Amino acid sequence: MRNTAILLIHCPDQRGLVAAIANFLLSHNANILHADQHQDGERILFLMRVEWDLSDFNLDLAGFGKAFAPIAERYRMEWRLETSIARPRLAIFVSKYDHCLADLLYRHQSGELSCEIPLVVSNHPDARPIADFYRIPYHHIPVIPGGADEAERRQLELLEQHQVDTLVLARYMQILSRDFVARYPQRILNVHHSFLPAFSGARPYHRAFDRGVKLIGATSHYVTETLDDGPIIEQDVARISHRDQLEDLLQKGRDLEKAVLSRAVRWYIEHRILVYANKTVIFD
Amino acid sequence: MRNTAILLIHCPDQRGLVAAIANFLLSHNANILHADQHQDGERILFLMRVEWDLSDFNLDLAGFGKAFAPIAERYRMEWRLETSIARPRLAIFVSKYDHCLADLLYRHQSGELSCEIPLVVSNHPDARPIADFYRIPYHHIPVIPGGADEAERRQLELLEQHQVDTLVLARYMQILSRDFVARYPQRILNVHHSFLPAFSGARPYHRAFDRGVKLIGATSHYVTETLDDGPIIEQDVARISHRDQLEDLLQKGRDLEKAVLSRAVRWYIEHRILVYANKTVIFD
Amino acid sequence: MRNTAILLIHCPDQRGLVAAIANFLLSHNANILHADQHQDGERILFLMRVEWDLSDFNLDLAGFGKAFAPIAERYRMEWRLETSIARPRLAIFVSKYDHCLADLLYRHQSGELSCEIPLVVSNHPDARPIADFYRIPYHHIPVIPGGADEAERRQLELLEQHQVDTLVLARYMQILSRDFVARYPQRILNVHHSFLPAFSGARPYHRAFDRGVKLIGATSHYVTETLDDGPIIEQDVARISHRDQLEDLLQKGRDLEKAVLSRAVRWYIEHRILVYANKTVIFD
Amino acid sequence: MRNTAILLIHCPDQRGLVAAIANFLLSHNANILHADQHQDGERILFLMRVEWDLSDFNLDLAGFGKAFAPIAERYRMEWRLETSIARPRLAIFVSKYDHCLADLLYRHQSGELSCEIPLVVSNHPDARPIADFYRIPYHHIPVIPGGADEAERRQLELLEQHQVDTLVLARYMQILSRDFVARYPQRILNVHHSFLPAFSGARPYHRAFDRGVKLIGATSHYVTETLDDGPIIEQDVARISHRDQLEDLLQKGRDLEKAVLSRAVRWYIEHRILVYANKTVIFD
Repeated sequence: MRNTAILLIHCPDQRGLVAAIANFLLSHNANILHADQHQDGERILFLMRVEWDLSDFNLDLAGFGKAFAPIAERYRMEWRLETSIARPRLAIFVSKYDHCLADLLYRHQSGELSCEIPLVVSNHPDARPIADFYRIPYHHIPVIPGGADEAERRQLELLEQHQVDTLVLARYMQILSRDFVARYPQRILNVHHSFLPAFSGARPYHRAFDRGVKLIGATSHYVTETLDDGPIIEQDVARISHRDQLEDLLQKGRDLEKAVLSRAVRWYIEHRILVYANKTVIFD
Repeated sequence: MRNTAILLIHCPDQRGLVAAIANFLLSHNANILHADQHQDGERILFLMRVEWDLSDFNLDLAGFGKAFAPIAERYRMEWRLETSIARPRLAIFVSKYDHCLADLLYRHQSGELSCEIPLVVSNHPDARPIADFYRIPYHHIPVIPGGADEAERRQLELLEQHQVDTLVLARYMQILSRDFVARYPQRILNVHHSFLPAFSGARPYHRAFDRGVKLIGATSHYVTETLDDGPIIEQDVARISHRDQLEDLLQKGRDLEKAVLSRAVRWYIEHRILVYANKTVIFD
Repeated sequence: MRNTAILLIHCPDQRGLVAAIANFLLSHNANILHADQHQDGERILFLMRVEWDLSDFNLDLAGFGKAFAPIAERYRMEWRLETSIARPRLAIFVSKYDHCLADLLYRHQSGELSCEIPLVVSNHPDARPIADFYRIPYHHIPVIPGGADEAERRQLELLEQHQVDTLVLARYMQILSRDFVARYPQRILNVHHSFLPAFSGARPYHRAFDRGVKLIGATSHYVTETLDDGPIIEQDVARISHRDQLEDLLQKGRDLEKAVLSRAVRWYIEHRILVYANKTVIFD
Repeated sequence: MRNTAILLIHCPDQRGLVAAIANFLLSHNANILHADQHQDGERILFLMRVEWDLSDFNLDLAGFGKAFAPIAERYRMEWRLETSIARPRLAIFVSKYDHCLADLLYRHQSGELSCEIPLVVSNHPDARPIADFYRIPYHHIPVIPGGADEAERRQLELLEQHQVDTLVLARYMQILSRDFVARYPQRILNVHHSFLPAFSGARPYHRAFDRGVKLIGATSHYVTETLDDGPIIEQDVARISHRDQLEDLLQKGRDLEKAVLSRAVRWYIEHRILVYANKTVIFD
């Protein structure tokens, strides 16, 4: 794998932005591998992702911020710098349904997901064997009625101890507290088993079945304070017919959930997601 | 085109239903061309569509009801009989956006839709040329504030005069009154420019854009008393990205609207739709 | 799970078929759960799948053939009877790529596939751990140059010993001999990593990439004497763009392969596939 | 509509390219609206599309080539400059099937396609009424056996007379001569009614039906000397089942053909297509 740096920027759109960034990178001998920019015409916003090879880059990354500051300030940029070698550290949260977990762990082991997964956290013991198989430590933290705070306290302890920076809720059926969520802004990915904003909340497949929709969906999104309302990362749908009973919806839905969550995780890991105005830009 | 009869049935599921129907048809020398049945396991319902060739059928259709009555009563069937030669008479309602109208009229003229279209009704004069081209009489009935009742009165007069049995709302932007809708139960088809139940009501593309969904949709459905809540006939979606501005959503949406409305109209004309429990079975 | 029987029939289409079958089943007190029939108008063929509950059925299945013979002969039917409790016994063949194997084993363990999998056969040792995890015996039978016959002999021995009736080639990269294939007519399922008939044969993703197609596909099909030419069971596609390099095609392709093969296996197990004229009818 | 310029470039990839182009445009006061670049890692190629507002641009476009030459030469670029106000002049060629023609003319009239359509050419008289309705001159040039050369001579005369720069073959069922094609390199768009490279050549739907595929497709592509082998611009597919007879394939296919051809035409008009290595990059 190449050793690259990725710069994600958004700022008010104005003349000279591309040249300023390109010249800065060139002045430090960067070889740009990919660059993608987008102008949101309605909001007069400029959004960019640029990735370059670090092998000839002559600026130490520790000093990047200081060197880049004049440009960033002049154009009022919000920016962040990532590198391909600093692999994100993900904790996967799961309850009883383990199809997303099994899918993510398989992809991780086969090299499709360039991240560390130091642990799996669950409020049930059921998914332990699959985690064991992939040699990922499994922590069973039950959530008893009235004990959510205590469970979150233990979870946070583990997350800190394992230096986790990102949470993936792979059909984790507990609602996290506002405080907990606030600690990981744009760092908690969830999969909801409907085509949001339709059927937000509980039992979406049952409600889709009752409404008689002709397509069911699944949505991966960032978790925010408001349930099922965070920025959408990916969605997909599958066709159903009157021949499909509720059981069939659940089964087709599982495949959708795996697809949209695994794509979201990959894009997250590759630093392809930029959030603004409660929406995402996916630099593909 | 073949001269066929179509029988649509739904009733409580019980043993012997298929044999009873098949024997009845055979006893009158029917040659079955298509038969499709469906058991809704949750509601213990039996639903069937059967189509047969009328050329050797030795029962006069006028007498069908009387002859079939013993079976229908025994099994407590709700049923209706249709024939391929009795072409439905559709009125298309349109406002300013004429893409669905143009699409339906092209399909009608090219033989894809086996129906009569005795008239187009609009609250605007804009779509007259395309109706003229396809030689369909165009009736401009403006709907002024406070004048909806009067407009509906004139519309009903026209519909009766032209012996219209079905209404197709092809982006007709007026809400029909409860009384009007009640006159055409399961006989008014509408297209809504969202993936229902998401974004029911006004300006769905704007709201989809603001929410940052990754797929937009369109839905064709029967009109009932409650806005955008009738039985769904067909839905489809298209992928969008951050590169798509509102204008692009509108354009991709137009293609979806044409697709889902024209499929609904064709299935309706071919007597493939059976409604129960506010859902549709599409016998394909 | 219900204890049901499934009857699959194809024969020349003629009047009275549905009644004859329905009456036969009713006379033995069958409660029909699903029935689906199809008339191929071009070939004047009748094809049917009917499934009924065995709990009240008063004909011993061992005697079904004798009792059904008069009808079958009169209408010149080709038919077969299956039951839901007689779970098919599948051997999965795999080479190095284990994504389809892992997917099938997960679905099997989670109850999505109602079959027995007595063994996995591979020409490589690589996939053993995943088979071990799911507790499926793994047989490594290397295929050395000039040693294909010997390998097939050992495979056949194993298949007989384990009373295997069906083979699933889950990215098994060896070509089976004509004799081997002839022993399992319509009982070997394969997945080919292209949208057949495009890119049959070797290295389909490479050739798709070179041709610059905008969608890549995968196909599950029955294996026949002619390579990649057997009856197609299922196909699916994924959109690609110029941003996708060969590596991305391979990755998107893996998800397609899992999808089309697992659907084919499920339909096979549920006795939903009927082959005629080198095509399949999927009774859904 | 904005008055913009579009620059399309491809050249060997090397350091400094983005900066060189951005600085050049900035030095002439360009306000970049969109920029998209792509590095083909296998071929070490750099491909770019950049669009800017001309309102403040202080370089006369007539002098662009001279001013840009030093950069273009230094980086060995192949490039072309287009403007949004220079609307391409398209001739649509059609035979008897007029669904693509009707679709394109509707989209043109409704403002979706920013081009001129000075004429429609056909070897049949059938499509004249729809061209008349949209007020596009219709030229009926029959192609009799042995008379293809003469027909092409007359077509070329018309194309020159109307200053046509681009041809759209909207189900034009004649094969153009090698000489004719050579006059319009990357300027003839065709729609083929299959998922290329499957079923190239004649009667693709019939062959798809016979092969028993589960999806049918359509492909828009540039015409080159070799039949159905030019760079693919867009493809799409639709699901079919055993219930679909040949007639249904033809009908579903028509909708696919309209979709893929109209998208290709729009991308062409918006200068979003770049061809290299017999493939297309679509800058979306």
